[in-house]
Amino acid sequence: MIDEARLGELAARALAGLGVSPADARDTARILALGDLFGHHTHGVSRVESYGERIRLAGIDAGAKPQVEVVAPALAKVDGRNALGPVAGMRALEAAMSLARTQGVGIALVRNSNHFGAAGAYSWLAAEAGFASIAASNASVTIAPTGGREARLGNSPIAFGVPGGAGRHFVLDMALSVVARAKIRAAAARAASIPDTWATDRDGRATTDPKAALDGFLLPIGGYKGYGLALAVDLLAGLLADAAYLTHVSSWSEAPREPGNLGHFFLAIDTRRLGSGEWLEERMRDFARILHETPAADPSKPVRLPGEAELDTLERQRREGIALDAKVIEMLERLAGESA
Amino acid sequence: MIDEARLGELAARALAGLGVSPADARDTARILALGDLFGHHTHGVSRVESYGERIRLAGIDAGAKPQVEVVAPALAKVDGRNALGPVAGMRALEAAMSLARTQGVGIALVRNSNHFGAAGAYSWLAAEAGFASIAASNASVTIAPTGGREARLGNSPIAFGVPGGAGRHFVLDMALSVVARAKIRAAAARAASIPDTWATDRDGRATTDPKAALDGFLLPIGGYKGYGLALAVDLLAGLLADAAYLTHVSSWSEAPREPGNLGHFFLAIDTRRLGSGEWLEERMRDFARILHETPAADPSKPVRLPGEAELDTLERQRREGIALDAKVIEMLERLAGESA
Repeated sequence: MIDEARLGELAARALAGLGVSPADARDTARILALGDLFGHHTHGVSRVESYGERIRLAGIDAGAKPQVEVVAPALAKVDGRNALGPVAGMRALEAAMSLARTQGVGIALVRNSNHFGAAGAYSWLAAEAGFASIAASNASVTIAPTGGREARLGNSPIAFGVPGGAGRHFVLDMALSVVARAKIRAAAARAASIPDTWATDRDGRATTDPKAALDGFLLPIGGYKGYGLALAVDLLAGLLADAAYLTHVSSWSEAPREPGNLGHFFLAIDTRRLGSGEWLEERMRDFARILHETPAADPSKPVRLPGEAELDTLERQRREGIALDAKVIEMLERLAGESA
Repeated sequence: MIDEARLGELAARALAGLGVSPADARDTARILALGDLFGHHTHGVSRVESYGERIRLAGIDAGAKPQVEVVAPALAKVDGRNALGPVAGMRALEAAMSLARTQGVGIALVRNSNHFGAAGAYSWLAAEAGFASIAASNASVTIAPTGGREARLGNSPIAFGVPGGAGRHFVLDMALSVVARAKIRAAAARAASIPDTWATDRDGRATTDPKAALDGFLLPIGGYKGYGLALAVDLLAGLLADAAYLTHVSSWSEAPREPGNLGHFFLAIDTRRLGSGEWLEERMRDFARILHETPAADPSKPVRLPGEAELDTLERQRREGIALDAKVIEMLERLAGESA
């Protein structure tokens, strides 16, 4: 167990040890620590290690300062200048919220960026500040188009957020594949078969064999619908942002020395322009109540909203400390020590 | 076969016969005819019949004039005043595009509206005018929350559009269920079983029996992911728009005399603020090329983009005429004649 404040400070020192400025290190630590607070450790501070490897290989520029260009009163383009993804992401989220404060709505489109952590972390921060939001990123290719047998699009993450009362915000954070590759790896490890909706083999045919699936491609949710949604995210976050898109996004693992040129999309809507805080809180409470009161198929499993389990984890870990792998803490301490 | 111009004119006259003003009738006819042009006749001019029934029952106000209130430079609220959905939808789309012309981005949130036709029709019109867009609506409840056994959310449609060169726009138009109920009805009619990912029985349990499915609930794409997306659409289009949401949306079939108070969401981004028309066209061509060149799992079925089949249908029907059921044309002629 590690205290939230201590984890943020340790991760920031580790990032500073990698050459990131103190302010940018704090922002990056904040985004990554939110991943851990939500219980999504794959998008938490453990990423500092791979961010650091990439910085050392000059694939990411630790000292880069993203540049915000306001191209219209409600629209900004952000050149990430190959900074850490959360650094570019935080500058862009701030730009979108700043535009929304005066215009009601703000959009920031980011190019020349990198892996930005959990999309939901941005929507959470926007909700805390009173903004409804969409936060999305494109990603290097892992998914074949419907009917194809070669990966040509990324498993792009997208988050939606709406402020709720007392921190009970609606935050939906999802990628567009049916499952993550880790789940297929787990099935392969225990020699179990998988549903034929999870992945295809290398020839683009649906498979129940996890080993064949690991040689093949993840399937998007809803077949051509998820394929279409992943393309829509890549168009908003990549193509329109003047970032790379589809196969132009370079792969972190295959080309660690090359800038990824990932793109992000941030939309912020100032909910205060739509009604009072009480108006919104009351509607959000009623919205949750209607769903919670749905008779459950299995009475032992009440109906929940997306993100509620994560909110519970966040609140519990803020009280009791964050359950973090000791190896991750050691890694951070090592990197932080190097900076001393 | 009926010519596009003749269909638009006939549908507009039929709507005028129902008491809709000539300008509003033209707008409604335009949206519905686009449904037919794309080959989606369920969202085409055949709807004039049910719109008319609802007008006669005073469930829709044929003469209502939606009111646009600009609450911030890039944000408008639209009171549909219980007009026909396409009338409220067109006023809102125009408002969002008008705001985007000066602010780069515009959002219009609609309340007190009704069924607005195909979401993709709005994204198509936005793309024709140079705007990237999201168009969405909530809907009366047909889907149970994940783990629930009572319908509490609608099968909300959402469309994404990005302008392409020579009218080859990207338009993704989808609802969030795996399949439409019509597909389950078709399986029941031929006594075929259905995949257990399509629907649940009335107790919320996945089923392969189409009859049990028709007594139960549609399943959203990707399980809790599609459930979350449907909620996100209802939050944007319903809750934030001050419209009804979830079970508050009244059902057309169960309460035809009551205003539906549906909500819509329109986002327009002026792509000219991001780069030149040539810049965008070239990127959109490259985007399509990368996908088209994906090796196909079945060589006889080349990889396509979402909406491409609909674009082909649109272009063919513009050349050769629209393949419309003779009964629909008779219905329109009858309604149009009543106005003479």
